[in-house]
Amino acid sequence: MDQPRASAPLRAEETGNPDKTPRTERGRRTLRKLLDAAATEFGERGFHDASISGITRRAGTALGSFYTYFDSKDEIFQALVRYMSEQLRDHVTPRVQAASDEISAERIGLESFLGFVREHKEIYRIIDEAEFVDYASYRRHYETTVERMRQRLEAGAARGEIRADASEVHAWAIAGMNVFLGMRYGLWDADADIADVARIANDMLANGLKKRD
Amino acid sequence: MDQPRASAPLRAEETGNPDKTPRTERGRRTLRKLLDAAATEFGERGFHDASISGITRRAGTALGSFYTYFDSKDEIFQALVRYMSEQLRDHVTPRVQAASDEISAERIGLESFLGFVREHKEIYRIIDEAEFVDYASYRRHYETTVERMRQRLEAGAARGEIRADASEVHAWAIAGMNVFLGMRYGLWDADADIADVARIANDMLANGLKKRD
Repeated sequence: MDQPRASAPLRAEETGNPDKTPRTERGRRTLRKLLDAAATEFGERGFHDASISGITRRAGTALGSFYTYFDSKDEIFQALVRYMSEQLRDHVTPRVQAASDEISAERIGLESFLGFVREHKEIYRIIDEAEFVDYASYRRHYETTVERMRQRLEAGAARGEIRADASEVHAWAIAGMNVFLGMRYGLWDADADIADVARIANDMLANGLKKRD
Repeated sequence: MDQPRASAPLRAEETGNPDKTPRTERGRRTLRKLLDAAATEFGERGFHDASISGITRRAGTALGSFYTYFDSKDEIFQALVRYMSEQLRDHVTPRVQAASDEISAERIGLESFLGFVREHKEIYRIIDEAEFVDYASYRRHYETTVERMRQRLEAGAARGEIRADASEVHAWAIAGMNVFLGMRYGLWDADADIADVARIANDMLANGLKKRD
């Protein structure tokens, strides 16, 4: 899996258009400014009310810069879903990879996701609106995220840290758990102790719900 | 919790307007026809493209009947979110209440939810679009559903069937698990064996992910 690097080239897919991938560091900075501005614009106004001029105003760039990288509002929205998905991955992955075992990795994964939500509250609105604006991007975000979790579970099972039958069903279950806990305790409740939420959920994930003696 | 009855009066909230609650059996039948038609119309076309005339055409009622119960497209959408939430509850609750213990109840709850999704694929689009059209209804749907799960966990813990510390965090985690499994194996994959998915997820919920000897 790719590790984030300070000035890593953006992947071609981030512009949604390989011909428009920036070739210079300055271009990559402008593209990032546009995507960050788009996150605020779409997050605050929603897809229908958001505008290209609103994005360039927030980014502090000329309108022409927008068209250097994107052809339309739809195109930057699609790029934004992928950008947010990758930002989330780049936030969570190094933390998870530093965990001592797979059970801890899932606790750290949830806690760092909850932290990301607190800092990027627009992520729910943007990913969820993709269900209506660009279903393929919506589905790809979840399929990609869950596949990463499934591989993590498989590796943990191979190391003997978790049950040997851990599978795709388990990965979807854990992803859903995390997304709902993020909505309830990251998005809606600014005061919840996210480390505590992650600890409680992880203990259920590790040991289950059955009463133990 | 209310049990479904064959011709139970619709709750006043179902019209979104207490003054417009039907007083006759015939009126209640018309209201239900409108709500069922609205589920298809909003499910197929989305909120923005859906129309009141599309709803009455599908319902086979006169346009005047619509205005007997609702003032606007927004109002029937709000009523529909509540109606779908209650239909789901009325489908799942009696099955769950017949379970022998709380762990089985959660398996049956998930399996019956997956079955409901297969029969009412529009539920995802409608509930999810409420996030953009009527956030209060969206949030109420999940808060109501999760509170019901939390009470079920609390009762199961009191009977000694599950861990004593089962709480709201556990309920949100289970709700998210179910919603994501419903999307992946109910909505996207018409061939998945939903009983098998429910069994796998329930075993993880019951016993956790840790390797057992």
